[in-house]
Amino acid sequence: MRNTQVLFKARPEGWVNDSHFEIVESESRAPREGEVLVRNLYLSVDPYMRGRMRATKSYTPGFELGKPLHGGGVGEIVESQSAKLPVGSYVSGMLGWENYTTAAAESLSLVDPALAPLSAYLGALGMPSMTAWYGMQEIGRAKAGETVVISAASGAVGQIAGQMAKMTGCRVVGTVGSDEKLRYILDELGFDAGINYKTVDSLGAALDEACPEGIDVYFENVGGAMLDAVLARVNPFARIIACGMISQYNLERPEGIHNLMSIIANRVLMQGFIVSDHFARMPEFHAEMGDWLKQGKIKYREDVTQGIENAPAAFIGMLKGKNFGKAVIEIAKP
Amino acid sequence: MRNTQVLFKARPEGWVNDSHFEIVESESRAPREGEVLVRNLYLSVDPYMRGRMRATKSYTPGFELGKPLHGGGVGEIVESQSAKLPVGSYVSGMLGWENYTTAAAESLSLVDPALAPLSAYLGALGMPSMTAWYGMQEIGRAKAGETVVISAASGAVGQIAGQMAKMTGCRVVGTVGSDEKLRYILDELGFDAGINYKTVDSLGAALDEACPEGIDVYFENVGGAMLDAVLARVNPFARIIACGMISQYNLERPEGIHNLMSIIANRVLMQGFIVSDHFARMPEFHAEMGDWLKQGKIKYREDVTQGIENAPAAFIGMLKGKNFGKAVIEIAKP
Repeated sequence: MRNTQVLFKARPEGWVNDSHFEIVESESRAPREGEVLVRNLYLSVDPYMRGRMRATKSYTPGFELGKPLHGGGVGEIVESQSAKLPVGSYVSGMLGWENYTTAAAESLSLVDPALAPLSAYLGALGMPSMTAWYGMQEIGRAKAGETVVISAASGAVGQIAGQMAKMTGCRVVGTVGSDEKLRYILDELGFDAGINYKTVDSLGAALDEACPEGIDVYFENVGGAMLDAVLARVNPFARIIACGMISQYNLERPEGIHNLMSIIANRVLMQGFIVSDHFARMPEFHAEMGDWLKQGKIKYREDVTQGIENAPAAFIGMLKGKNFGKAVIEIAKP
Repeated sequence: MRNTQVLFKARPEGWVNDSHFEIVESESRAPREGEVLVRNLYLSVDPYMRGRMRATKSYTPGFELGKPLHGGGVGEIVESQSAKLPVGSYVSGMLGWENYTTAAAESLSLVDPALAPLSAYLGALGMPSMTAWYGMQEIGRAKAGETVVISAASGAVGQIAGQMAKMTGCRVVGTVGSDEKLRYILDELGFDAGINYKTVDSLGAALDEACPEGIDVYFENVGGAMLDAVLARVNPFARIIACGMISQYNLERPEGIHNLMSIIANRVLMQGFIVSDHFARMPEFHAEMGDWLKQGKIKYREDVTQGIENAPAAFIGMLKGKNFGKAVIEIAKP
């Protein structure tokens, strides 16, 4: 099949731009025994992918120069050399940034298009949502009445984490980068307070006002000055769910964090995690989150970019916080 | 009784110096019902006391200006209005920086001078040793074959923590501030490698050489550049026992830590703790550590300063790393 591909052309130092990608035309490779050809429908655009652009080792294999980028995706089987995945079935898994990916059948999972829109398998029923679910349950362990701060609160992970905290009975405070996002977390998701970090005079003063009883749980998606401001306001025995630090990914040297002594004085737990370490619990996650979505207890917003050729722009925009909700690329309609 | 006292005269900003203390002569107050008069023998000089000099809230009550400093101490009961603590018995507890302290009997615990030298109740059988014991067991959870880095390795906490890691079968690397301390941890305590951070060209290169297989557990006593260098070298699922950051206590603004993203990529647990939260486990600690000391499995070095009037100098020296072993002040012989 004729295949438009987004290749990784050059390693960025600092901010990612168009010159780090190359769009080429090629032909897809026919599947061999045990393989399938997937017509890609949705591709996931996630902050962690910035780490895969580095030459240094990270927790996921790095992108190879000259090869297509790859990440979470959902597609339809159009050719199959595997009895497990018949033509016409829908799958999720790691797929290339291209129209068609030839993949080992065992690397893909069947998904049910009747249960949820297919793009949801990249968000509300996918990796970002499971990230929020695992982090809140296993690290945050918020109790009713506690104050929970969620950074990047309208993002793929933040919106789920915040709604879970609301279900627990917490005071939930979100930080976002636009007034539109602020209205969304307050009016649509029911957060108790919110901060547009781009317009406040002082992040510290804004947190003081939003968290009059201090901070018990912090879902860390951004790092930098936000982390420092939170550290200065945590309560004894606070938990920091160290999920991401997107504000730092494009800096050649990350900002310095000055308030770490608070971790000792306040007996803070700061725990880093990578959701893929816990994929064995996916069925449990699917059951619980699926119920919440069905019952309308969890809402979810996506930011859909059309067309594989626009994938680099979607990625660059996501790193700058321009997406509003979970960033996905729609390559083709189901 | 005639009483020499060390008062807290002024709050330091930056480094502590003599002008923050005042030595005065007074008379001790006779004990009332339920109180005792303690002839102080040994006073403990600990890094956490620097935090009590701040006006901001810390985890222990701050020192009051114009009042004697106070901290861990061991003494002899010389007058008693409590049946629990007869004259002639020995006690440990929070005592003033003075020759005689009038205290509530219930705030003190009897200690056995036959079991160990009395000063040991401030160190090897006291708070610093229990800090090492709790941190290594509950947070570090080192396994045989892992690499454990201990900062301030010849100090009150570090020397115990390192020897515990050796007993577990770990590769143990200590960082210290003099060649004399380096020889001590290598030759006397049996550490596998050591670093004099004051003389190495590059802390990172020295850690690379001392920890060829990365770092699994870090006992954090110093903070700053050491923490940053360790973060860049931790293995997946490393544990950071956040006990103290003495290099930062006298800075008006703590240094920035740049490598916190490693906490996410490597799924690091960083847990702050204060040993006094866990004093309910003191009997368990005394039993286990007492056995190790008796069997010679744990060695312990003290740095004894003579005379109450030299307490400020001992405290200032400890903050600069001039002590070699657990810093104590001997006020009088038992």
